[in-house]
Amino acid sequence: MVVKLVVAYDGTGFRGWAKQPGQRTVEGALSEALQRILRRAPVLSVAGRTDAGVHAHGQVVSLAAPDDVDLERMRRAVNRMLGPEVVVRSAQKAPDGFDARRSALWREYRYRIDVGEVPDPFRARYVWHRPGELSVGAMRKAARLLVGEHDFASFGRKPEEAGASTVRRLDRLSVARTGDLLEITARANAFLQQMVRSLVGTLVSVGEGELEGDSMPAVLAATDRSRAGPVAPPHGLTLERVAYRRALAL
Amino acid sequence: MVVKLVVAYDGTGFRGWAKQPGQRTVEGALSEALQRILRRAPVLSVAGRTDAGVHAHGQVVSLAAPDDVDLERMRRAVNRMLGPEVVVRSAQKAPDGFDARRSALWREYRYRIDVGEVPDPFRARYVWHRPGELSVGAMRKAARLLVGEHDFASFGRKPEEAGASTVRRLDRLSVARTGDLLEITARANAFLQQMVRSLVGTLVSVGEGELEGDSMPAVLAATDRSRAGPVAPPHGLTLERVAYRRALAL
Repeated sequence: MVVKLVVAYDGTGFRGWAKQPGQRTVEGALSEALQRILRRAPVLSVAGRTDAGVHAHGQVVSLAAPDDVDLERMRRAVNRMLGPEVVVRSAQKAPDGFDARRSALWREYRYRIDVGEVPDPFRARYVWHRPGELSVGAMRKAARLLVGEHDFASFGRKPEEAGASTVRRLDRLSVARTGDLLEITARANAFLQQMVRSLVGTLVSVGEGELEGDSMPAVLAATDRSRAGPVAPPHGLTLERVAYRRALAL
Repeated sequence: MVVKLVVAYDGTGFRGWAKQPGQRTVEGALSEALQRILRRAPVLSVAGRTDAGVHAHGQVVSLAAPDDVDLERMRRAVNRMLGPEVVVRSAQKAPDGFDARRSALWREYRYRIDVGEVPDPFRARYVWHRPGELSVGAMRKAARLLVGEHDFASFGRKPEEAGASTVRRLDRLSVARTGDLLEITARANAFLQQMVRSLVGTLVSVGEGELEGDSMPAVLAATDRSRAGPVAPPHGLTLERVAYRRALAL
């Protein structure tokens, strides 16, 4: 059967999602735990290949498992091995053909910035502490110019496959403020590598007055990474959720 | 002049507040940072001597400093050295005679318990994950029987000084619930060592039905630690704030 896992993790201690020899990665840790239970190495498909230091609240993973596996027991056993750093929030049988990466309709990430003078020790692992005012109005104006289907080559790494497209459909890019905490939410059908952090770094440059918000269409048109703002640090970023068609969502 | 510091820290990586040779402690780290700026070893008085692994949001520390010290520069310099694990939220000149420990009217601690089945990776350092239901009603009834001025010898370590009293005035002991998160707030003129964690462990035993809430007066009267519940783990506990008389509060 196909199994769908919803996974949360604190990415601080990991070199990102993707398995790499000799590195501690979330995929590596999760595969190893699942292998102990399933007694064979699983092949994992993932909705969001998060970079080193990036967190997830609602990451989605799929894998094939024998039909007689007790998913609830499997979930608890994995959590005993990996929790609370990595936690399987749910494990369910998915429809045939479900694939966490290919079946996803959209991914939603949230980036948190603390603009207060003094960092908060309890949020420091999950929030970028960047003291000093930012113009939220200017950031929102720029964000609106980035929403839509565009070639985002200026905002992310080119995929490794030859001829792969850098066109993505950005459905939402919003900036909310509560006290000293800024939360930037980005939702798209898919993201290029480092795309959310490049969008955030660019919005922060706009909020600082370093970049003109009005220039966003020209930055997009240039398809040149040097035209956008810097890449924001990974620890402020969390993959919040992934959406699937109703028939595949469970 | 006398200086009052309000300090926050993530206690995870420390062997508690109090300086100990060869151990990483909050007092040790803060003294060292202050010594670099003041060019002499400060003597720190602290409102709450937190145990290993316990956190603080509003710890208060006092020390003597030369009158010409620029407190805002000192505060920023300490934060550059120790932040974001330990952060000085404010540094102000205090009235003569102010002493963070002796002048305190009361201390307020909060203990957080997650009773949900799956731990939350983002709260795991600051919340005791203890899955399974607890009767909040029974806990509240027991808590009401503990409020007041009592000999709390059943709920904490005897002070080391010979003849020291174990009588304390517990002004508040409340249990609030939001979803899977239980927050127990304890306020007293002062606490014995491990007293908050013993109160919490006892309330949890009551919530589990292991201990009778009605037995609290008898547990107090016994002045015998073996009569109360176990000591809850340190990482769920945070010193939230300390109150002073208005003239000393700044």
